[in-house]
Amino acid sequence: MTDKPTLLENVHFPSDLRQLTRAQLKQLAIELRECILQNVSRTGGHLSSNLGTVELTLALHYVFNTPEDRLVWDVGHQSYAHKILTGRRARMPTLRQLGGLSGFPRRAESEYDAFGTAHSSTSISAALGMALAARQKGEVRKAVAVIGDGAMTAGMAFEALNHAGVERDARLLVVLNDNDMSISPPVGALNRYLAQLMSGQFYAAARNVGKTVLGPVPPLLELARRLEEGAKGMVTPGTLFEKFGFNYIGPIDGHDLDALIPTLENIRSLMSAQSGPQFLHVVTKKGHGYKLAEADPIAYHGPGRFDPAVGLVAPAAPRQTFSQVFGQWLCDMAAQDERLVGITPAMREGSGMVAFHQRYPARYFDVGIAEQHAVTLAAGLACEGLKPVVAIYSTFLQRAYDQLIHDVALQNLPVVFALDRAGLVGADGATHAGNYDIAFLRCIPNISIACPADERECRQLLTCAYEQNHPVAVRYPRGAGAGAAPLPDLSALPFGRGETRRQGRRIAILAFGTLLYPALQAAEKLDATVINMRWAKPLDLALLREAAEAHEALVTLEEGCIAGGAGSAAAEALQAMRITRPILHLGLPDRFIDHGDSAQLLALHGLNAEGIEAAVRQRFAQP
Amino acid sequence: MTDKPTLLENVHFPSDLRQLTRAQLKQLAIELRECILQNVSRTGGHLSSNLGTVELTLALHYVFNTPEDRLVWDVGHQSYAHKILTGRRARMPTLRQLGGLSGFPRRAESEYDAFGTAHSSTSISAALGMALAARQKGEVRKAVAVIGDGAMTAGMAFEALNHAGVERDARLLVVLNDNDMSISPPVGALNRYLAQLMSGQFYAAARNVGKTVLGPVPPLLELARRLEEGAKGMVTPGTLFEKFGFNYIGPIDGHDLDALIPTLENIRSLMSAQSGPQFLHVVTKKGHGYKLAEADPIAYHGPGRFDPAVGLVAPAAPRQTFSQVFGQWLCDMAAQDERLVGITPAMREGSGMVAFHQRYPARYFDVGIAEQHAVTLAAGLACEGLKPVVAIYSTFLQRAYDQLIHDVALQNLPVVFALDRAGLVGADGATHAGNYDIAFLRCIPNISIACPADERECRQLLTCAYEQNHPVAVRYPRGAGAGAAPLPDLSALPFGRGETRRQGRRIAILAFGTLLYPALQAAEKLDATVINMRWAKPLDLALLREAAEAHEALVTLEEGCIAGGAGSAAAEALQAMRITRPILHLGLPDRFIDHGDSAQLLALHGLNAEGIEAAVRQRFAQP
Repeated sequence: MTDKPTLLENVHFPSDLRQLTRAQLKQLAIELRECILQNVSRTGGHLSSNLGTVELTLALHYVFNTPEDRLVWDVGHQSYAHKILTGRRARMPTLRQLGGLSGFPRRAESEYDAFGTAHSSTSISAALGMALAARQKGEVRKAVAVIGDGAMTAGMAFEALNHAGVERDARLLVVLNDNDMSISPPVGALNRYLAQLMSGQFYAAARNVGKTVLGPVPPLLELARRLEEGAKGMVTPGTLFEKFGFNYIGPIDGHDLDALIPTLENIRSLMSAQSGPQFLHVVTKKGHGYKLAEADPIAYHGPGRFDPAVGLVAPAAPRQTFSQVFGQWLCDMAAQDERLVGITPAMREGSGMVAFHQRYPARYFDVGIAEQHAVTLAAGLACEGLKPVVAIYSTFLQRAYDQLIHDVALQNLPVVFALDRAGLVGADGATHAGNYDIAFLRCIPNISIACPADERECRQLLTCAYEQNHPVAVRYPRGAGAGAAPLPDLSALPFGRGETRRQGRRIAILAFGTLLYPALQAAEKLDATVINMRWAKPLDLALLREAAEAHEALVTLEEGCIAGGAGSAAAEALQAMRITRPILHLGLPDRFIDHGDSAQLLALHGLNAEGIEAAVRQRFAQP
Repeated sequence: MTDKPTLLENVHFPSDLRQLTRAQLKQLAIELRECILQNVSRTGGHLSSNLGTVELTLALHYVFNTPEDRLVWDVGHQSYAHKILTGRRARMPTLRQLGGLSGFPRRAESEYDAFGTAHSSTSISAALGMALAARQKGEVRKAVAVIGDGAMTAGMAFEALNHAGVERDARLLVVLNDNDMSISPPVGALNRYLAQLMSGQFYAAARNVGKTVLGPVPPLLELARRLEEGAKGMVTPGTLFEKFGFNYIGPIDGHDLDALIPTLENIRSLMSAQSGPQFLHVVTKKGHGYKLAEADPIAYHGPGRFDPAVGLVAPAAPRQTFSQVFGQWLCDMAAQDERLVGITPAMREGSGMVAFHQRYPARYFDVGIAEQHAVTLAAGLACEGLKPVVAIYSTFLQRAYDQLIHDVALQNLPVVFALDRAGLVGADGATHAGNYDIAFLRCIPNISIACPADERECRQLLTCAYEQNHPVAVRYPRGAGAGAAPLPDLSALPFGRGETRRQGRRIAILAFGTLLYPALQAAEKLDATVINMRWAKPLDLALLREAAEAHEALVTLEEGCIAGGAGSAAAEALQAMRITRPILHLGLPDRFIDHGDSAQLLALHGLNAEGIEAAVRQRFAQP
């Protein structure tokens, strides 16, 4: 596995690739895998998914005329081979770092990145749009969406299938990359159904179809196509995807270039002939070619740096993350209150719910990548007196915004939202930004928003949220905080109340969340008052009034967008109290923020102690 | 149809209903239909959908033990018979009026309203939540979701099916009310598939099954159930719903109580025995029993008042609505620019797109109730150089919030959002409120938000939005505006610029949108300056600075939530310009606002001329 690449050095773009023999392509797959492993082990990033799609990537670029034909990678965390093959090999060491390559496809990065992805299940809609645009413009280009089985559980994929199925003359191919895993193991009826398709004779027979029946079909001959469909019908009768109007082909082995290339070539001919939307079911193995990742694809889903020869090593006494604090709280509260149920949209590991799942399997619901359903399911459970806790990343709650408003908030149901990854998310970048939650939640009646300043408060505010009889979101950032050890008990902080942490003069800094700590540092230099607001909604109005009346000016501070955020709420509240004060709003600016190290990014946006101090001095001209 | 009801007078609750004979139930259906027609013709409201579900409602309450068993009406605009049969007949004349009955199920209104609905496709998630809660609590109650074929196109229904299919011991029934119509005619592959199920021998044979095979099955006998499934399998092999793990039964005639009641009784037995999730496919006709509505169910979907004997009469020279202004603009712009494509999520009529559809069928996409797909499809089309215009109600954009952020705004694609029903929506009430859009949009980078003050500006701002190379939302309210006739040309107002409409003293009112007109009236009394801001984002900063510097105090005014709204944006901008002024924020309060006449509701919230004047005087103590 450590020989110097030879073929790959001369393959810069898909046009180079198309000159190679089948045997050379197979060698290239080996080199690509090695290149991915070497790079990811140095930069961190998504590994299992990328090792699993090497041959599929090669075959797609070999058969389709990219970038003229459009290739849309669903989620996009499997696009490293694609990046390497489209002019970006040399920049792979910069992956997911400040100023470096994105970990996802981005239109701004390459003409081969037809559509920016990262959140799941957008690819069919986007590719269909491209195919319909080509039709309207009289262009013959094709559009291909590559989507995993996990991503197929999201409703929007079905919405797109439902539309695509009736657009008979759109040149669209959906490739289902069935690896029997999203990030957590997949769930639901669809997955069970896919497993049936793959099992036993179906799979064997269908593979045969891929190689023999499909192989020799002369392109463009509608009659032959019908015959072929008839033959296929005998082995895989009436799949779900056929009921949606697609021509279903598969399942075939996604690591076998001898199956992939001829099958794709035939599908390409069908697309040229506008023979309706095409659906190819490909079976791959996450982590393929790297034994450690094959054995534990979840651990190798998105590892940090590691030595490929050794594999992942548990870091020495890592600091407890907010996700872990949440996970522990969930188990402890579940032990105390049997009404508690936990819901995750396919983020068991990321949200810290593995232990809860093990201890309380009957009270744990992983609904798949289905945020909308997750939230309304919680509403239904809450109607019956249970106490649902929905663990969801801030950025993914955007997917369930209407359900939060219409089903939870409007009915004022006691659902707790544990909003992980609030604020900057680091290496995942703009697509995953948790910057908007305070703004998009605080305009909604009935819901409250807690912003713990550290791990200890996180646990206490979760308890407080759980005790309320209305919806409450508790938002906390990715990774670890200041390091305040949570108390072992289930004590709560008071609802809607903040605290003064430092008494200073002239200026009061109102901190919402974990930026309390840099605020305290800055305040030492500024001799400013620091208030730990804790709640973005409801605001502690008494404390706010007191702070405004005792100081000349206020500073609001949050790891979230300034526009409509907690600081803006404080300003509104002051005006409603007829108090007019100069206010400096510190937070994230009104632009999308690219990937990079979180601490670096915070500093870059003036949200570390030095930045806060400088901004306050500049605004209020304090000596 | 005009005899005095006799049976209905004595049926107050489902328990009364359960005492009736089959023949009496049939008579009751006639009386219910008459009751609905008489009431809706006086109050306005949903008609076609309610006439179509009379027998289904009767049968469900007859067979299931409501309210102990839970009945969730998807969308809920078909719940009038349900309301009449559950203690609310006397209040039907107050329907959709201020302080009266809601047009949708509401938990606060009746214990029979198990879940509040209005937005589509939430019912399966909610009912599954209830069924899972019952399981956890060891209760045997059942949960039933009634969902239309239109609502089945929304992704979240599939997310719920996918989850429900694996919860084998949840007592859940999904009733698909297949009336071949959502509001606009339905579209997509699913609808075509349902039509196949209904056509020809399938339907005939399956009806037979409903009456004979299902009829005599002894409850609780698993063996019998399997035999029955085998028999059923012969006539309807492997439906899509069976692939999702449901026991599919149907289609049966939803107007035939002799088919409905025995079938539901058998299904109820299967649910008692925890025989997996059940799926009943019922076929009904919208408007059933009222010939005029049967002939034109779209016109009678949500009529205003009318004489049942005469039917709908076109009102004399009605004022042009904003939807019509949009529809005309869309046609005119399409004639001028062939890149324009129009997208609607199943709201052709409501959004004013009928003429566009007729004139430009190839450039018109009704994607079904699928807001998420609609927005990402637009993104895909925009990537290829087309100019998509997404017509969507403000409240339904909540369903596509993540797609707007992740697919459109992040990639800065030129998509125009024509946001209809922004602000208060009147009779539909809190579920449909368009109060939040400015707040939830302005926190997102790259997107601009225009707020036309009247019909003329609406057309000009749509043109301006269309000319931009980034996403722009143009928000306008339901119904008619001040009556300013649009100019016939396609001239644009300048991007991001407002105008001073009245020069006064001391106080400047910054109006965002149609409340400009009451602001102008109030300003006459107050001798205040009035500024027509036109854009909530970007703000006209020069105008804002000028207004602040020339006045002692500012008033912001918008038909939208105060929290995080346009006024809050103005306040943030002033602080960023280091200008401190007293500001009174006028807009909608931080609570859900019930249904009622829009003008009444505006007055109630102080958003008419008198209310504005009073609020300004109170705040700024002007004589």
